[in-house]
Amino acid sequence: MSSERGLAQSSARRPTIGVFDSGFGGLTVLKALLQLIPEADYCYFGDTARLPYGSKSVETVARYAVEAAHYLESHGAQMLVIACNTATALALERIRSGAHVPVVGVIEPGAEAAVASSKNQKVVVIGTEATISSHAYRIALEARHLQAREKACPLLVPLVEEGWVEHSVTEQVARIYLEEAFADGFSDADTLVLGCTHYPLLKPLLRRVVPEHVSIVDSAESTARAVASQLERLVPSTGAAEERRRLPRLQFFATDSVEKFRRLGERFLGHAIENVQHVDLKE
Amino acid sequence: MSSERGLAQSSARRPTIGVFDSGFGGLTVLKALLQLIPEADYCYFGDTARLPYGSKSVETVARYAVEAAHYLESHGAQMLVIACNTATALALERIRSGAHVPVVGVIEPGAEAAVASSKNQKVVVIGTEATISSHAYRIALEARHLQAREKACPLLVPLVEEGWVEHSVTEQVARIYLEEAFADGFSDADTLVLGCTHYPLLKPLLRRVVPEHVSIVDSAESTARAVASQLERLVPSTGAAEERRRLPRLQFFATDSVEKFRRLGERFLGHAIENVQHVDLKE
Repeated sequence: MSSERGLAQSSARRPTIGVFDSGFGGLTVLKALLQLIPEADYCYFGDTARLPYGSKSVETVARYAVEAAHYLESHGAQMLVIACNTATALALERIRSGAHVPVVGVIEPGAEAAVASSKNQKVVVIGTEATISSHAYRIALEARHLQAREKACPLLVPLVEEGWVEHSVTEQVARIYLEEAFADGFSDADTLVLGCTHYPLLKPLLRRVVPEHVSIVDSAESTARAVASQLERLVPSTGAAEERRRLPRLQFFATDSVEKFRRLGERFLGHAIENVQHVDLKE
Repeated sequence: MSSERGLAQSSARRPTIGVFDSGFGGLTVLKALLQLIPEADYCYFGDTARLPYGSKSVETVARYAVEAAHYLESHGAQMLVIACNTATALALERIRSGAHVPVVGVIEPGAEAAVASSKNQKVVVIGTEATISSHAYRIALEARHLQAREKACPLLVPLVEEGWVEHSVTEQVARIYLEEAFADGFSDADTLVLGCTHYPLLKPLLRRVVPEHVSIVDSAESTARAVASQLERLVPSTGAAEERRRLPRLQFFATDSVEKFRRLGERFLGHAIENVQHVDLKE
């Protein structure tokens, strides 16, 4: 496979992982990647001029995501992480077929983690309108013999972006959405999959809203584990010890305001963001 | 003025008015236009693939808005209504300087209506993050000797798009925003300007939230009046009576899903939407 050769050739030095999202949410995936794989370098692409993808159609999202993936590849990414549930749900195959490097999405790892977590094979998935309408999670979960109830929660992303991650309004909204999701045949579901990379910021609040017996699967963490295992397989640890010990090199690209990316992004990544470059995909 | 000549030449037939918004909100302006000026035809451009503009930077919004304005002009619009507060705030002058027809924004008419409404010259304006950060309303109001308090309300658009226009959560969110806006030196402000074309759908709810003495200025209505008076001046009523009596011809263009535009748009326009064409501005 040409994509595996591409990575193997670079095994003597640190691998560069490209991470893509429509905006800031993917930074929760980058955060999980940095914790689990500090021996890699990262370039992150936030398509902030065209966000949110969550309410857009398949065609539009697929076109945007493929452009962004090509951009990261042309900037040295040897592996691509589609850190956006909507782009994964709607465009993963199109990105894969156009890419020359391995591509990891967030949905398969999320589904795997749900399998590991659920005892009664009944799972609730929450996400944006576009992710849920695609039924990508239901398909991935049913293929693993799990029953899935999907629920779109369009207000949660704007609430997170407003910074109301511990606000009583957000708790009411989450309660309304989750009561509907856990109703009827799914009141005994034992796993909740966070099918949107903004939602990890709501984990403490969601923990209070869902029944105690429910485990919460954070697809940022499960995606980082999937990337780590694929990287281990493709790039055995052969780099010079010294080179492997230095801090990850981080590079950020954003299609809208660099200043805003820095300011909002820090909330998601959990520390300061430097080195952001503006990108205009039309040029 | 070449733009006035362009319209005068077409005075024998019905004028075509181009209406532009990032999405659906501008349909509240189109609704007001249809009520006030039924003797015109309309083409509406919703840049739904790239919405919302409200959280984007000046450069990005200006580029998008200019492209959309050119599109409407090339499709026969003899007058342009920028039915989007964010695009008006950030790009009106750039659209005007590139257009060959008269251009009307929503902010000047809103400011004029505030002057007519306010007795104590103290006004509160609510809008998206980008509209408020531009201070376009404060500048327009202060030029008319009014004091203005501006307040960004980023959650109101997603709440309207979720259809929660009479929901208790929306009422709480509106109360939080408006309590901050009417605090300190502005508790006696007597006018609230709705500086976003989504907000007219919240008028009954906002009426309950603001103090009784406060008048609500709906910029959709004031913009329609501004268009009517400019049209009257430029195109005297000389058309054949028969031609003037027929129903307005409506044409819609959307950059994202046509089906979604039809479905969501009906809520804003108040009646069925037909004749929507998909447009890809990149092609």
